[in-house]
Amino acid sequence: MSIEGIYDQTNIFAQILRGEAPACKVYEDEHILALMDVFPQAPAHTLVIPKNGGRNILDTDEADVVHVIKGVKRIAAAVKKAFLPDGIMIAQFNGEPVGQSVFHLHFHIIPRFTDQPVVEHGHGQMADMKLLTAQAAKITAALD
Amino acid sequence: MSIEGIYDQTNIFAQILRGEAPACKVYEDEHILALMDVFPQAPAHTLVIPKNGGRNILDTDEADVVHVIKGVKRIAAAVKKAFLPDGIMIAQFNGEPVGQSVFHLHFHIIPRFTDQPVVEHGHGQMADMKLLTAQAAKITAALD
Repeated sequence: MSIEGIYDQTNIFAQILRGEAPACKVYEDEHILALMDVFPQAPAHTLVIPKNGGRNILDTDEADVVHVIKGVKRIAAAVKKAFLPDGIMIAQFNGEPVGQSVFHLHFHIIPRFTDQPVVEHGHGQMADMKLLTAQAAKITAALD
Repeated sequence: MSIEGIYDQTNIFAQILRGEAPACKVYEDEHILALMDVFPQAPAHTLVIPKNGGRNILDTDEADVVHVIKGVKRIAAAVKKAFLPDGIMIAQFNGEPVGQSVFHLHFHIIPRFTDQPVVEHGHGQMADMKLLTAQAAKITAALD
């Protein structure tokens, strides 16, 4: 799937937003949802998505992109406070050729711990849900 | 340099913003500057920076982060229109351990052309300035 396309209502984030699929939620308000990535590239790998999202940054309304980046900044600060990473990568993919696999806009917050290897995007193992739930709680508690 | 630190006024983006260093500018207003990356990972690799920026997304004011993401969305649309990439990666690095090399907040807009290899971050050759100037003009002309 390229950058162009029609929004698919069956994607996993649409299912989560409709309450049809489970998620380890970190933060939620009327505009955005922050949740743990179930295929983490590093511990505490978190995602921020708009509730009213398109496939990518290009076809999502500017107002929703703004809600998401405010969430990214706030959640990244909480990840830093809770896990003390050595660095934090923010990434957002548009189109399958750059690694997008779920076609609902999402920003990745990927902490980097220099004593741990980074898992390549798309090559992670599904994480233990108890571990993700504990990480989510730790980030939520660190939110300003 | 980690995520924490004091803003260094001698970084290259601060020099560009003060008019002390050259840049291939794509777009400029009172809040942001978009410019070509001189070590491109792919053709038309563009950067968006806030004029009133901190070292990273954490220590830059929310209002400036919002100005930047609006610019990223708009410039990415122009890059897509002008160069027809197969995908576009948006990336923003916080801290040297994740690859940040200039400590003034910047968002990367990196087009992906499936028939061309991607240069690893930090391993690019300095681009020909005439080529970058032509790419910048093409993106500027495609701005909505």
